[in-house]
Amino acid sequence: MTSRQAAKNERVGATNARGALLKQERALQTRQTVLAAAAEMFAEQGFPAVTVMDVAQRAEMTKGAVYFHFTNKEALAQAVVEEFYRRLPVIVAPALEKDLPPLRAVAEVLHRTALAFQDDRVIQAGARLQIERSYIGAELPPPYTAFQAMIEELLTQANEEGALHSRLSPDAYARVLVAAFFGAQHISWVQCNRRDIEDRVREIVEAVLPDRV
Amino acid sequence: MTSRQAAKNERVGATNARGALLKQERALQTRQTVLAAAAEMFAEQGFPAVTVMDVAQRAEMTKGAVYFHFTNKEALAQAVVEEFYRRLPVIVAPALEKDLPPLRAVAEVLHRTALAFQDDRVIQAGARLQIERSYIGAELPPPYTAFQAMIEELLTQANEEGALHSRLSPDAYARVLVAAFFGAQHISWVQCNRRDIEDRVREIVEAVLPDRV
Repeated sequence: MTSRQAAKNERVGATNARGALLKQERALQTRQTVLAAAAEMFAEQGFPAVTVMDVAQRAEMTKGAVYFHFTNKEALAQAVVEEFYRRLPVIVAPALEKDLPPLRAVAEVLHRTALAFQDDRVIQAGARLQIERSYIGAELPPPYTAFQAMIEELLTQANEEGALHSRLSPDAYARVLVAAFFGAQHISWVQCNRRDIEDRVREIVEAVLPDRV
Repeated sequence: MTSRQAAKNERVGATNARGALLKQERALQTRQTVLAAAAEMFAEQGFPAVTVMDVAQRAEMTKGAVYFHFTNKEALAQAVVEEFYRRLPVIVAPALEKDLPPLRAVAEVLHRTALAFQDDRVIQAGARLQIERSYIGAELPPPYTAFQAMIEELLTQANEEGALHSRLSPDAYARVLVAAFFGAQHISWVQCNRRDIEDRVREIVEAVLPDRV
């Protein structure tokens, strides 16, 4: 092989590699579009009411394109719930990086999560799919446990610093906060499409952690 | 008409009336049996998964017998939810009659309600049907409002007696307690079929109303 040929082959190879990368990127983008459409549909109508055709129409794609990325409706739901659990830590991360006193961090975590429940379709869909999990024939991550663990860690820290004035243990406190948060976002959803969730979460912090500053 | 004839007619009338009453009573009993079976099925499997046939089989009746009392599955769900709202005030009544200080009464109301969520199939079914209300093509009473109003009334009383040490208003406190209760019973249901609901509700009372005595 001459060096010119080798150079040409290399160029062809590079073009192919770039082509493959572009194709892969497009496929990933398509997958993300389908996922976003599925999240919207599940958030609005719930798992039992949504069909793969609904998701395809919302994504402005053919049913075939959806099936290329997801085997069935169950796989769509599973992917949305997984995305919910990937996104939640990202949403609360700034609250943890700010070096706030731990009880203030708890308040900030709940506040940021409340805003996400109000605005983020993946978060809304994930919450709805978790309460509909008995209709979804697919394994979903156990609900509440990761969020509960994060809150508990902050409260343990607060307790060690003597900031938790109560007979309750940090894990009990975390259970109460997570239950109150979950209940508030649900009731707020049913009663006014989560318009008052920020106020409700502020009330929870005030009622449960009055001496957080 | 002789007086003997009149007496006979009266007896016949009385027998007919007694017969009609017995028939009515049997019909009511059948209706109650169907309702109890529907509550069990809805509590266990949820509205979308249950058929009228399932309810008939659980009640050990024909489908026709079920349809004699209820037009369709929607009517069954509606009747169960109505029974939930009839039953709840009866369950908490003893807590209100005991002449407890209002914050103690709140704790007692939540405790009794927790036990009902653990044991009472109509209460369990009502809770599940309320979170599945978007799949039920029938009017259901607005959820949480009556319970919220009852808690709020007790907290208003506590506030007037100076027993509520907080910047929060009684209605905000009631929102927090109802949200925490609803969230706790739901998480407890998902995680362990409500085995720990009593402990969880005790923790809520301790965290939100520490100076209730």
